[in-house]
Amino acid sequence: MSLEPSSNTLADLGESGLVAKILAHISESTVSAMGVEVAAGDDAAVLHPGGSCVVLSVDMYAEGKHFRTDWSTAVEIGRRCAAGSMADVCAMGSTPIGLLLAVGMPSTTASDWAGEFIVGFTQEAEVAGAVLLGGDVSDCDTIVISVTALGTIASGTAVTRNGARAGDIVGICGSSGMAAAGLRILQSGLRSPRVLVDAFRVPRIDYSAGARAAKGGATAMIDISDGLLADVEHIARGSHVGVDLSTEKFDLPQELISAAAAFGLDPLSWILTGGDDHAIVATFPPKKRLPTGFTEIGRITGDKAAEVLVDGVPYRERWNVAPGFRHFSQ
Amino acid sequence: MSLEPSSNTLADLGESGLVAKILAHISESTVSAMGVEVAAGDDAAVLHPGGSCVVLSVDMYAEGKHFRTDWSTAVEIGRRCAAGSMADVCAMGSTPIGLLLAVGMPSTTASDWAGEFIVGFTQEAEVAGAVLLGGDVSDCDTIVISVTALGTIASGTAVTRNGARAGDIVGICGSSGMAAAGLRILQSGLRSPRVLVDAFRVPRIDYSAGARAAKGGATAMIDISDGLLADVEHIARGSHVGVDLSTEKFDLPQELISAAAAFGLDPLSWILTGGDDHAIVATFPPKKRLPTGFTEIGRITGDKAAEVLVDGVPYRERWNVAPGFRHFSQ
Repeated sequence: MSLEPSSNTLADLGESGLVAKILAHISESTVSAMGVEVAAGDDAAVLHPGGSCVVLSVDMYAEGKHFRTDWSTAVEIGRRCAAGSMADVCAMGSTPIGLLLAVGMPSTTASDWAGEFIVGFTQEAEVAGAVLLGGDVSDCDTIVISVTALGTIASGTAVTRNGARAGDIVGICGSSGMAAAGLRILQSGLRSPRVLVDAFRVPRIDYSAGARAAKGGATAMIDISDGLLADVEHIARGSHVGVDLSTEKFDLPQELISAAAAFGLDPLSWILTGGDDHAIVATFPPKKRLPTGFTEIGRITGDKAAEVLVDGVPYRERWNVAPGFRHFSQ
Repeated sequence: MSLEPSSNTLADLGESGLVAKILAHISESTVSAMGVEVAAGDDAAVLHPGGSCVVLSVDMYAEGKHFRTDWSTAVEIGRRCAAGSMADVCAMGSTPIGLLLAVGMPSTTASDWAGEFIVGFTQEAEVAGAVLLGGDVSDCDTIVISVTALGTIASGTAVTRNGARAGDIVGICGSSGMAAAGLRILQSGLRSPRVLVDAFRVPRIDYSAGARAAKGGATAMIDISDGLLADVEHIARGSHVGVDLSTEKFDLPQELISAAAAFGLDPLSWILTGGDDHAIVATFPPKKRLPTGFTEIGRITGDKAAEVLVDGVPYRERWNVAPGFRHFSQ
């Protein structure tokens, strides 16, 4: 889908013009197929949940903190915002069915930028099989995007962070560290290798991985958004278990090795602490065969609750790293 | 509830500290009573909807656009953000049961301010009978709040903007124009009369009004957030009918008359165009008795679709006003 170029800003387009642009991306046929009784355009959306429970998550993305408009196109930023939020719904064992989008933008924002953002956002929603259910647009001093993702799941089948048991296998679906490498490359003023930069710009998410893991008997699950160590630690704390990750089992793409060498870094540091890839990490009973797409990266231990080991050693002893990203840190 | 004063900022408190502050306001007992299977703290919340349909709405509030920290306390801003979003769920005929909260704040924000905002937010949620289901916190150059409100409703009973018919009575529950007067007073540097300023700071919403209207046979419904004329026009457009508002039926509080006189304004201009009161406007079949709390302010006409009259005259002919607030306008 292309947008006609223009030099107009949101001050020219107006709130109703921007809303019309967004509504144009809502497919009536898709919406009716999802059990939606009232779609976007009224005070609220109304829908039949397909399962007996609804799964809900919200994420916020701020210009200069989560994305930069000189590093990513509007389409890429739209895709990334949709993807990151939908990954949370997957990490409960559900699949995303709907999204709510709240956007704050300065009135000096180019209308084309706003329109292309919506194109990317709805493209990624379509990849996951989700529809835009509603939203809000607002004047704001900076670009801020808030995305609410909705899924459904049968009662009692949601996979939390709290069910891992000693002996369980830790499996991952998707890559870790690629987005962090891409971010480092962009920060240094470079724009390639593309495979790493693209991993930061638009995470590639297997939206059915969480549901496969749940069906495959996953005992705990999370998506990597803060960093592998930080997110695995969430499982360790929630489940009152320890985790031992085996770096020999990590997938080490050649691009990651080369880029790390160029920066004088260990590629494992990106894999262990990089966020934004939104790979799904789940734990499985020891005798279970891992679901398609999942590979083993470690084991749950019963030794010391909430402790994360890397190759048998507490990560803080070997790796002088923060386990992942934290907001508000200086 | 009071917070111990401190000079700490979010940079000192950190993301996990702010999240802990928020989680402390989530009552376990309330959550379990609402059919929540997984509450805040995991990737997503999971809940049984009490009705057969879920009702979902999102709103965004930006510093300097929707609120000013020198005009309102953090508690008031928290209450207002929760209230405005829950009003949308009410305007479908539902009652709010849950909220998701995404907050973006600069790391220089006082931790106390953030904590008091959460106090106000959860206070207002409690007034409505809703619980905080989850959220996200993020570093941002300005304070931005995104609120997703959730309700449930029996299938087929949601009241949209599209069902008004010629001859229907237009009823209102709650005041209109008070918040606009309060905003005008604050803009002029004054801080009283309090009843008007407070109406802007924290709208007082009857959270069961929408459900009463739905039970009472409402044919269309909306909450006033843009302005009475603008929002009634949404019903007129959606329902392909005209609306004739009768100003003689408007409630004209003495404080509104006095404040308007002080500014040399007609108080009706505030009532007709002021947003942010979140009164509920609904249309009812002509022979129906209006539900408790609703008073008649006009009639639906079949003359000219989408036209809004005031005392029989198109409002643009008599009132040199925009029908309500629009973002991005200069």
